[in-house]
Amino acid sequence: MKKNESRGFASDNNSGIHPDIMKEMEAVNKGHVIGYGDDTYTREAEELFRIIFGSETEVFFVFTGTAANVLGLKALTRSWNSIITAFTAHIEQDECGAPEKFTGCKLLTVDTPEGKINKDMLTRHLHGFDFEHHSQPKVVSITQSTEMGTVYTPEEVSELAEFVHGHGMLLHMDGARIANAAAALNLPFRDFTTDAGVDVLSFGGTKNGMMYGEAVCFLRNGLSKDFKYIRKQGMQLASKMRYVAAQFIAYFRNDLWLKNAVHANNMAAALAERIDGIEGINRTQEVYSNGVFVTIPGTVADEVRSQYFFYPWNEELSEYRLMTSWDTTGDDIENFAALLENKMKEYNS
Amino acid sequence: MKKNESRGFASDNNSGIHPDIMKEMEAVNKGHVIGYGDDTYTREAEELFRIIFGSETEVFFVFTGTAANVLGLKALTRSWNSIITAFTAHIEQDECGAPEKFTGCKLLTVDTPEGKINKDMLTRHLHGFDFEHHSQPKVVSITQSTEMGTVYTPEEVSELAEFVHGHGMLLHMDGARIANAAAALNLPFRDFTTDAGVDVLSFGGTKNGMMYGEAVCFLRNGLSKDFKYIRKQGMQLASKMRYVAAQFIAYFRNDLWLKNAVHANNMAAALAERIDGIEGINRTQEVYSNGVFVTIPGTVADEVRSQYFFYPWNEELSEYRLMTSWDTTGDDIENFAALLENKMKEYNS
Amino acid sequence: MKKNESRGFASDNNSGIHPDIMKEMEAVNKGHVIGYGDDTYTREAEELFRIIFGSETEVFFVFTGTAANVLGLKALTRSWNSIITAFTAHIEQDECGAPEKFTGCKLLTVDTPEGKINKDMLTRHLHGFDFEHHSQPKVVSITQSTEMGTVYTPEEVSELAEFVHGHGMLLHMDGARIANAAAALNLPFRDFTTDAGVDVLSFGGTKNGMMYGEAVCFLRNGLSKDFKYIRKQGMQLASKMRYVAAQFIAYFRNDLWLKNAVHANNMAAALAERIDGIEGINRTQEVYSNGVFVTIPGTVADEVRSQYFFYPWNEELSEYRLMTSWDTTGDDIENFAALLENKMKEYNS
Amino acid sequence: MKKNESRGFASDNNSGIHPDIMKEMEAVNKGHVIGYGDDTYTREAEELFRIIFGSETEVFFVFTGTAANVLGLKALTRSWNSIITAFTAHIEQDECGAPEKFTGCKLLTVDTPEGKINKDMLTRHLHGFDFEHHSQPKVVSITQSTEMGTVYTPEEVSELAEFVHGHGMLLHMDGARIANAAAALNLPFRDFTTDAGVDVLSFGGTKNGMMYGEAVCFLRNGLSKDFKYIRKQGMQLASKMRYVAAQFIAYFRNDLWLKNAVHANNMAAALAERIDGIEGINRTQEVYSNGVFVTIPGTVADEVRSQYFFYPWNEELSEYRLMTSWDTTGDDIENFAALLENKMKEYNS
Repeated sequence: MKKNESRGFASDNNSGIHPDIMKEMEAVNKGHVIGYGDDTYTREAEELFRIIFGSETEVFFVFTGTAANVLGLKALTRSWNSIITAFTAHIEQDECGAPEKFTGCKLLTVDTPEGKINKDMLTRHLHGFDFEHHSQPKVVSITQSTEMGTVYTPEEVSELAEFVHGHGMLLHMDGARIANAAAALNLPFRDFTTDAGVDVLSFGGTKNGMMYGEAVCFLRNGLSKDFKYIRKQGMQLASKMRYVAAQFIAYFRNDLWLKNAVHANNMAAALAERIDGIEGINRTQEVYSNGVFVTIPGTVADEVRSQYFFYPWNEELSEYRLMTSWDTTGDDIENFAALLENKMKEYNS
Repeated sequence: MKKNESRGFASDNNSGIHPDIMKEMEAVNKGHVIGYGDDTYTREAEELFRIIFGSETEVFFVFTGTAANVLGLKALTRSWNSIITAFTAHIEQDECGAPEKFTGCKLLTVDTPEGKINKDMLTRHLHGFDFEHHSQPKVVSITQSTEMGTVYTPEEVSELAEFVHGHGMLLHMDGARIANAAAALNLPFRDFTTDAGVDVLSFGGTKNGMMYGEAVCFLRNGLSKDFKYIRKQGMQLASKMRYVAAQFIAYFRNDLWLKNAVHANNMAAALAERIDGIEGINRTQEVYSNGVFVTIPGTVADEVRSQYFFYPWNEELSEYRLMTSWDTTGDDIENFAALLENKMKEYNS
Repeated sequence: MKKNESRGFASDNNSGIHPDIMKEMEAVNKGHVIGYGDDTYTREAEELFRIIFGSETEVFFVFTGTAANVLGLKALTRSWNSIITAFTAHIEQDECGAPEKFTGCKLLTVDTPEGKINKDMLTRHLHGFDFEHHSQPKVVSITQSTEMGTVYTPEEVSELAEFVHGHGMLLHMDGARIANAAAALNLPFRDFTTDAGVDVLSFGGTKNGMMYGEAVCFLRNGLSKDFKYIRKQGMQLASKMRYVAAQFIAYFRNDLWLKNAVHANNMAAALAERIDGIEGINRTQEVYSNGVFVTIPGTVADEVRSQYFFYPWNEELSEYRLMTSWDTTGDDIENFAALLENKMKEYNS
Repeated sequence: MKKNESRGFASDNNSGIHPDIMKEMEAVNKGHVIGYGDDTYTREAEELFRIIFGSETEVFFVFTGTAANVLGLKALTRSWNSIITAFTAHIEQDECGAPEKFTGCKLLTVDTPEGKINKDMLTRHLHGFDFEHHSQPKVVSITQSTEMGTVYTPEEVSELAEFVHGHGMLLHMDGARIANAAAALNLPFRDFTTDAGVDVLSFGGTKNGMMYGEAVCFLRNGLSKDFKYIRKQGMQLASKMRYVAAQFIAYFRNDLWLKNAVHANNMAAALAERIDGIEGINRTQEVYSNGVFVTIPGTVADEVRSQYFFYPWNEELSEYRLMTSWDTTGDDIENFAALLENKMKEYNS
């Protein structure tokens, strides 16, 4: 167990729950409602998604981001399909093979210097169509914002969607940090999802102030037909669904999601700026959303990590990832940066 | 959507969260803690399980009862094994094939007039050992309390465990309603689990006042070696684990679990007694825990269900299941019974 | 290893290959042909199936009977479906869970005193349609001739097919011994397959004089769309397909299949008659095709089995199965029966 | 259907069966033997593998090369493992996702300019050990001879095996063309398999004169414990196993395998030499075994392919693969090369 539990930069899911969300969970905690989503709170939350993403949207709540990705991909594929994604994608690196286990599909990867896929990168994998020896390419999965903190513009998504659809394939978006992307772009969700040609979206809230619960959003008619069975067989049907629904209701009320995401992004910018002033620390990615990527000499990183835990991103390069959150404060940044600065001074001297 | 949301008898998971549990979730909602269970709250909750079930217990939290069953069974089997259970078991009837999908195993069933398996029932399936054409029997799965509301005594579990182990197999217990069983038996959990020879237990709290979160308990050394991968690949690793841990901490504090379960059981007894006075309604099972099974003439059942929804158990027999909960009141029973009584009078006249 | 390799009654697949089939395999052994079935021999064999089963038939060759069943069922289902079959069926007892592993589906069984399913037996499992908690019933699988040697009439198949289709389900037939059934009924294959409403058929030849290779026959349009991928991913696409095709060409030429099957059936009738004259041996099933089921006192069975190996069918009842084959001779029967008769005399005295 | 069935260079599995192998299949075609491998022919074939690969070798026959690879990998892994292989490997490109479907594992690839993996290429994937979010690296799979016709030396295999074992992982070899590699190296199989540290080998014969049947060889104790169930559940247990065994018996007798492989390799060398004299055709790989890789201008390739079918290797580069076989003749080469030469002359003029 990592001992330190102060507010650090390990991950945006190390944060707690926004008080408004907790209050809404309490507010629905009365009386009986039919289980498994057949209740008025769930209907209300679903309606919010239709307002945001368009009236054809079909939305299903699940527990985790991994589940949202895996079950959404299952709905789009048969086991003889392949799914193309970035080598750095969560579905490739951080889901312990859940996509392969549950869908049976092959995952193919492309190298993406900044975490973003473009159509030229896909060419390598787009062959063997109709050839029974070869897994049939069916889905391209992108992450918004990406694992490197970069953000796709609506135009970039559109261009990719058009290309993907032109090959008879579908476009999936892992939106574990979609709020941070919307905040960075200063655009409604719809502009870079439904309207840009995304077919299925994993909409995440846990990294931005929710407790648990993610939404699989089918943005095109006809893709969700069997999803209720996929969700149940995927062990992701909540009996007391109202507590998931309540979170989304509070999350969308008065744009709480946006305030949280703007704050986290701003804190990342501030953190980056503060770090840029520390000699010997180099940033490896430009900051678009709520992640800051830096190289820190090995011994220094470990000394700081013993007080403020954070994760290595690429151990070979001594590259580390620092994530800000909806509850990061200016003091958090200053305290952390001051410690880092001191350790670097010792190191440099 | 079923419209009625008053407190009825459809299922114990239609109830809300006990206030003490909600309060504990708020209490832990401060600061950052490392995600995915590497935090002090989770350590505390795990320790409670070791106190209750024995020091060798290894416990892992997951989201749903279906997941607890399926992942626990996965830890005990390879795909060429078979799992024997009651035809009425949740894993056979109500998990949409998740056990087969995730474990690859064959499920074999036995008919159990009262939901309980005994060793004589197993004989039919105990053959073909070491014969490569035949799925190798490996696990017997029982439910405590059963889907029919009946309860295994420690002696019954022990006898079964000894028999199962004697065949080189393992004993799994689905404890979605284990609190109701403990209350009915008036015995500590240990007496009919660890000490009676159960190998792996799904410990459920959602049906007894929790919001979400179940515990897979390995009661013997050596069975949980790979379970951390099974849980993650099974899409059941919570990032903000502290909120699951907090629930269990509150659940075990001052025997909250027991008070809730005793209450639900008492309410079932009261409901049964009240119903026994209604002409034309017949009970089909003796009441041991928190389920009441009755036959109600078709039109009457539907009329009552439009106000108080509850589920059919066996449509051919017009048999219905009424579940009481930790929050059922005497008024709930009286209001429901009065309506049922009136409708039956009209029907009988 | 069982030592005895004389011509006995253990199984019809212990026999060798009919010389005409071996000759045909030699005949096609010249020059190069494109692999994986894209050759003129395969086209010729496929055409034979269309002549026999109807012009809409789509046929795919695989290696084993287990594969024919499992892949055919995969084509008809998604993982959240259930498949209903006889408790004694090969897919339930003798495929080591391959159907569950490869399709993810739940298998449900019915008890069938004579191996044959009728619609009344199915009722128990036909519920929970559209209910996401419950595996959705999708296929009924019957065996022709059955594992007990009994045979469905065209009328019986039709009645079942109509019932099954009426529930939005499909009818699968395991025809590992379909030739013996056709011989017993003295009817063309079509009468009790395509014309009786069977949707997918596993057509077997290995038990009736072929070396390897079975055919998955889709008897209705539209069911085989993805089957080429299912076969390849199922590891059942033969590179040198011409040698499978050649076998079927020889098998159908001059009704070789029928001569072989009639012979095997006649030998079973003769064996049954001869055995009926032995005191203390009781037959447990009427003989319709090429299987004879008898009870033999334990010690006697083992003594005979050490010379002529055969399999127990139900060890609790001391019931054994004796299979005749296309190459069984009158002498085989007489030698075996004489030995059995002697051992029984010793036993009875 | 590709029309041309003359002896071309599309694939070594477009060839027929060596007459000695066919003769042996006839020779065992007499009497009954116990099915599924419990017979003296199978014992004899297994013993031959022990003589060749070492006394600890456990060998299991299956039908196809895909099955040998997939089932062998299944024996070495659990679903949360990853398998590292070349991007060009058969298990990555040409098995329609069967490895993912049947093992549940993630496949990771490395780019290998000449088809051969070395330890430096593996570094990228060797991280995340013991981290539950990440598929655990468990197997490296190499192909001998490779898909590009190159051959690993015993030293190269040893170095890789040592590195792989040092990481607690295992080494798998796809030996679909292992005979061509042995012929190219002029070494016994053992030198670059068992003695070089290979754990499991897919031993193929179909591409070198056999009809069907491959062997999964476990070269270390303790790896094959459950393999009999894996094979049966994998639908790869042949009932009439003697005909597979007979092929291997003939294949090893008088080094038939070696004569076939030497011949095929020599023909490839001759083909390469002849082609080198044709202006405008460039070879892209050095010839080590029985594959020749060339670039041919698009229209010319298609004109020749309409008479002598062969497969593109890399369509972007107009690169094609020409395979020689045990039955390729000097005339085959001359006829093909003359046609190619003519077409090129037309093209160049």
